[in-house]
Amino acid sequence: MPKNNPPLVVLVRPQLGENIGAVARAMCNFGLKELRIVAPRDGWPNPRAVETASGGEAIIENAKIFPDVASALADVNIAYATTARMRDIEKRVVTPSETMEEMVGVWSMESKELPHSKLHKSPTRGEGMKIAFVFGPERTGLENDDVALCDAFITIPTAPDKSSLNLAQSVVVVGYEWWKRSVECGVWSLEKEKPHSKLHAPITTSAPKSDWQGLFDQLESYLDESGFFRVADKKPIMWQNMRNMFLRGRFTSQEIRTFRGMLRVLWEGRIARK
Amino acid sequence: MPKNNPPLVVLVRPQLGENIGAVARAMCNFGLKELRIVAPRDGWPNPRAVETASGGEAIIENAKIFPDVASALADVNIAYATTARMRDIEKRVVTPSETMEEMVGVWSMESKELPHSKLHKSPTRGEGMKIAFVFGPERTGLENDDVALCDAFITIPTAPDKSSLNLAQSVVVVGYEWWKRSVECGVWSLEKEKPHSKLHAPITTSAPKSDWQGLFDQLESYLDESGFFRVADKKPIMWQNMRNMFLRGRFTSQEIRTFRGMLRVLWEGRIARK
Repeated sequence: MPKNNPPLVVLVRPQLGENIGAVARAMCNFGLKELRIVAPRDGWPNPRAVETASGGEAIIENAKIFPDVASALADVNIAYATTARMRDIEKRVVTPSETMEEMVGVWSMESKELPHSKLHKSPTRGEGMKIAFVFGPERTGLENDDVALCDAFITIPTAPDKSSLNLAQSVVVVGYEWWKRSVECGVWSLEKEKPHSKLHAPITTSAPKSDWQGLFDQLESYLDESGFFRVADKKPIMWQNMRNMFLRGRFTSQEIRTFRGMLRVLWEGRIARK
Repeated sequence: MPKNNPPLVVLVRPQLGENIGAVARAMCNFGLKELRIVAPRDGWPNPRAVETASGGEAIIENAKIFPDVASALADVNIAYATTARMRDIEKRVVTPSETMEEMVGVWSMESKELPHSKLHKSPTRGEGMKIAFVFGPERTGLENDDVALCDAFITIPTAPDKSSLNLAQSVVVVGYEWWKRSVECGVWSLEKEKPHSKLHAPITTSAPKSDWQGLFDQLESYLDESGFFRVADKKPIMWQNMRNMFLRGRFTSQEIRTFRGMLRVLWEGRIARK
């Protein structure tokens, strides 16, 4: 089983310390560990970055500083540059999810014959292979010189009239896609989240919530009056569970009317007795 | 051609204006338009929200304020609650990408012939269907009462030791997945839609059929005795539809016992009257 480290994050000329801190926080969320910073505008260390890291302090403290992109990428095998702008540069453009597919491909080929073995033969292939996500400065983004050593552009799909994500949010999207894919395919040696217990029912349709509220109000008043909730303390959880079991059925508006009619018929006897 | 509006974003008791602004910005990035806010801590309007919206000012200005979750969801058909915590609540848990598959399923059914068109015909289906993403307050997240009307939990996959995303970043991930999926499949035009049946394979967690039969026998006898089925000819189809709507909820054995207890309490009044 190959042991691959998570990809590196490289920030090129970041401006605000709080943005660097927010990047570290997002890295934590998605299991990214190693941060490299090229020529931070306000110098280093930056106390503001630590203050805003919110759990990512260790990432900030262990961040390595480089004078230029070339030195930051010196030991990196594959670098993806994130950009919102299409450029005149002849490079592949991939989405975040395509990026992750490529990475899985790279790492899972470890023990196999490679089609272009000459090109790829390297002591750093597979195990120990280093992959970097490169992010540009706030506002201006990466310059052409910055991306000279990068293998492809990652472009995050966004609404066409509002394509600029802030720095940490770009890291969130790329980190999220990476984590999602890494959990799915198990290429990385990570402590895995236990699978969610899923209760899949295909979505069909459901009445507007106001219909549901009407049903619940009616049923609750019946149950209260009839003393169904014998122990008052237990009512909140019991009632919550009951509403959930009905919601799961995704009743239509018509079905809710039927249900309410049924409840009314049963209840009328009770009213009449009083 | 069905006209579907993008999903709504509902913020429940948000605290900081700048977080509301950051949410609006993220909504813009991913083509989400309509923001509803339940009981914002610092009142409304909040100038800080506008200052930090960075392109999302119109979303802030058009945001609607509600006193509680029930009123914010009154016209919503399907509501997804985002949460980092697993709960004791019996509700489906889906990832952001699974959520989008479900939504595509809902919307794409609109313009097609449905195999059970009679059963499914409802004014709330397909066109005009409202779907909401519900986000809780910073730090504390959604309370159990907040999610009572929600249909499922969205849980964003994160590193297990650092599962809390900030508010705007949760909106980024959910918005990103929504935008990505809507671009891929054309949620509005639906022409390029791919089959997605695999993702809908139901996993059953339902009580044994004997429990169901016990419930149905009890309910049927109550309804017969109370004259609920006024027209005898129509009873078979009505009763079949009612059983189906309950079956769709995939009740557990415990839930069936609760349901039967509830029916008994309502019925006792009727018996006593005779």
